[in-house]
Amino acid sequence: MLDLMPSLKEWQPAATGQRCALATVVWAGGSVPRPLGTSMLVSEAGDVLGSLSGGCVEGAVVEAALAALHDGGTRREFFGYSTEDAFAVGLTCGGELEIHIEPLGTAPGGLRLENLRVLAGQGPGSALALIRRVDAHGGGAVVIPDPASFLVEHSAELAVLLGLPELSPRAAARLMRAAAAQLEPLLRGGRTGLVRLAPAEGCLSGMGVPPGQTTNSATSPEPITLLVESRLPLARLLIFGANDFGAALLPAAQLLGYHVTLCDARPAFAGQSRFAGADQVVTAWPHRYLAEEAAAGRIDARTVACVLTHDPKFDIPLLQTALGLDLAYVGAMGSRRSHRQRVDSLLAAGVGPEDLSRLHSPIGLDLGAVTPAEVAVSITAELVASRTRSAGASVQAASLKDVAGPIHGTGPIHGAGTSHKASPIHNVNTPQHQETPWI
Amino acid sequence: MLDLMPSLKEWQPAATGQRCALATVVWAGGSVPRPLGTSMLVSEAGDVLGSLSGGCVEGAVVEAALAALHDGGTRREFFGYSTEDAFAVGLTCGGELEIHIEPLGTAPGGLRLENLRVLAGQGPGSALALIRRVDAHGGGAVVIPDPASFLVEHSAELAVLLGLPELSPRAAARLMRAAAAQLEPLLRGGRTGLVRLAPAEGCLSGMGVPPGQTTNSATSPEPITLLVESRLPLARLLIFGANDFGAALLPAAQLLGYHVTLCDARPAFAGQSRFAGADQVVTAWPHRYLAEEAAAGRIDARTVACVLTHDPKFDIPLLQTALGLDLAYVGAMGSRRSHRQRVDSLLAAGVGPEDLSRLHSPIGLDLGAVTPAEVAVSITAELVASRTRSAGASVQAASLKDVAGPIHGTGPIHGAGTSHKASPIHNVNTPQHQETPWI
Repeated sequence: MLDLMPSLKEWQPAATGQRCALATVVWAGGSVPRPLGTSMLVSEAGDVLGSLSGGCVEGAVVEAALAALHDGGTRREFFGYSTEDAFAVGLTCGGELEIHIEPLGTAPGGLRLENLRVLAGQGPGSALALIRRVDAHGGGAVVIPDPASFLVEHSAELAVLLGLPELSPRAAARLMRAAAAQLEPLLRGGRTGLVRLAPAEGCLSGMGVPPGQTTNSATSPEPITLLVESRLPLARLLIFGANDFGAALLPAAQLLGYHVTLCDARPAFAGQSRFAGADQVVTAWPHRYLAEEAAAGRIDARTVACVLTHDPKFDIPLLQTALGLDLAYVGAMGSRRSHRQRVDSLLAAGVGPEDLSRLHSPIGLDLGAVTPAEVAVSITAELVASRTRSAGASVQAASLKDVAGPIHGTGPIHGAGTSHKASPIHNVNTPQHQETPWI
Repeated sequence: MLDLMPSLKEWQPAATGQRCALATVVWAGGSVPRPLGTSMLVSEAGDVLGSLSGGCVEGAVVEAALAALHDGGTRREFFGYSTEDAFAVGLTCGGELEIHIEPLGTAPGGLRLENLRVLAGQGPGSALALIRRVDAHGGGAVVIPDPASFLVEHSAELAVLLGLPELSPRAAARLMRAAAAQLEPLLRGGRTGLVRLAPAEGCLSGMGVPPGQTTNSATSPEPITLLVESRLPLARLLIFGANDFGAALLPAAQLLGYHVTLCDARPAFAGQSRFAGADQVVTAWPHRYLAEEAAAGRIDARTVACVLTHDPKFDIPLLQTALGLDLAYVGAMGSRRSHRQRVDSLLAAGVGPEDLSRLHSPIGLDLGAVTPAEVAVSITAELVASRTRSAGASVQAASLKDVAGPIHGTGPIHGAGTSHKASPIHNVNTPQHQETPWI
């Protein structure tokens, strides 16, 4: 559901008070395109916000949502792979999806569109969590504006959501402890997950129950199922260097969900209007700024630093500082020659080989990027690959730091129609009319 | 200079009529970050627009530009690699730059800020060319709003720029023919280049003269030097599929300079406000729309088609159509299983293996992308790499189509704080309190 927040405020059906149903992925198997929690809103007029897959199941979900709005009940829809007829509703990717469909604002204590609109007003950069009950017995929800400090066992709202007033004090306390043990790591970590709690025993199992199986037997009462979605404040990306590369990286990094700070020591450059889209513009010596932010606790292990200053008097002290911090990614722009000089200077300045090995230099993936916009793509692509690697998975994309050869590509440039060769030939004894080496 | 057009309109010093000087890269050697033609505007108050390198030479260029504004003369500044002192003004990348600095609006027939502001008003998507004289004898310019149909020999403005009125009719005609032969390929191709013409002989040489050498000898009069910058209309990128992946790819493709059309057959999806940023939204059956656009001549060899529909009833006829056209790139989203099915269906539909080999499926680079924003990065990264490869250069970045293994990564997602594993374990016999397999 949190995936819809950025666009919910401007969605007309919500603004004009139409009745809506919320369809949410509560189980996903195989190579499905969207994760648990992904949601789609359907208005009574059939307007939709969001999507649950690449497009193959939405039509059927819209129909089920309209039926739910008609009769007021929640629904489960299961979509699997259909070999019989690839043109029928089915996931040709081979994945499986289970969708929980809930009319908003009908059940007592249920999720209301007004609550969601208030949440959406929090802004995309702030922390936020939502706990929804998605089993057959309830459709309620608890909105948590500050998931980092939320204490499950102190929440009266959550007690109601779990149905604790109907339990003995002893069973209620046990259930609350079990809930806290499962919910708080998700809330603190900014993660999404499904939590299943058996009311009698305290906790049934954390594992999802695949479709077709059931836990609703005599020894195993139907569990309370909670969908937890938690979002941390945006991770920070610091761009050092108010130049064309910084200007191009800025919006590309924002599209990836970063809070972007642009820092440059030169006021005439940092103050340009093309950087006005930054979440923050700072005129300061880069290494001093980074050290101050770290000292103030505004830097964490999700923070990314992109050093595009291209000038050793800024680069070297800045990289010394950056490599001494626990950051998610530190990259520095420059030619292969700049890189060798930079490594020598950093070693001479006392940076250890292990810290140095974490430096992405030359910054970016080996795509043959030429224009600032293309270089920005090569940097964001390396960021994504680096995140995947740090999560323990392997990816094949090659970083410039790991391959030899030219950094810039040749040939015409996307959209701009200009071109650039890395190694112009300096020979002037060529036939007349030959085009210049820069063409 | 064309690189400054998008931001020129909103640049305060130009809007308030300050005097400005234009600094332009007219020679670039080695691995410099910015190509020929890259420009920076400097106002009399020292405000700047644009940058010429990563940041290492701008300070010195600003000083030279202020001096040029003071005395009204044009200037050349050369920046090379300085081994003596890496902290002095110099290109540590090992590159060399020669910068032409010209005060605007002072020379008769010279380039005026008003002309540039009119040009900037043309919009980023339209074709445009600028021919500037950048030798010691002139600072004039000819603005060309329609470079595709511009005939050099019919241009009175260009005749004045080349100084033809001072030549004999025979010499003038010869010079004009030589100019046409060199200028028109650049203008038609949307390219940037330096053209050198010797007034007496018609054409001296197309090669640039490296700094330190000179052609100004008795037998070789100083050549007319023209900087040509030409821009084609924006290349088109067609997104098929009004879903979250389409919504994320849209702004990412626009950042790369594409004119983006979003097409989906389902009005309720294509009409969502989150697609309002598209240059064009079309509700139509994808394969019919593509065939109609091709028939109308609105598709060319720079056009990119990204098939994100994730539904074979749209995909198969669309890919059949797309692979029959001469497009720059055709990519299709889907799991490895969808891909195998798709290939079988396309072969069965009569698509030849050679056409099929041009299909990027599964779409994108192997980055372990999970969120729509990350998938958009993997697609734009593959687009850049594909452009580099089609220009004949090799890049190491691996496309998903060329590697085996899972498409989606694992671990926490950038900015969103949700997560997704491709292969949930269906075992429910796990210890209590264990987190769900989707966490």
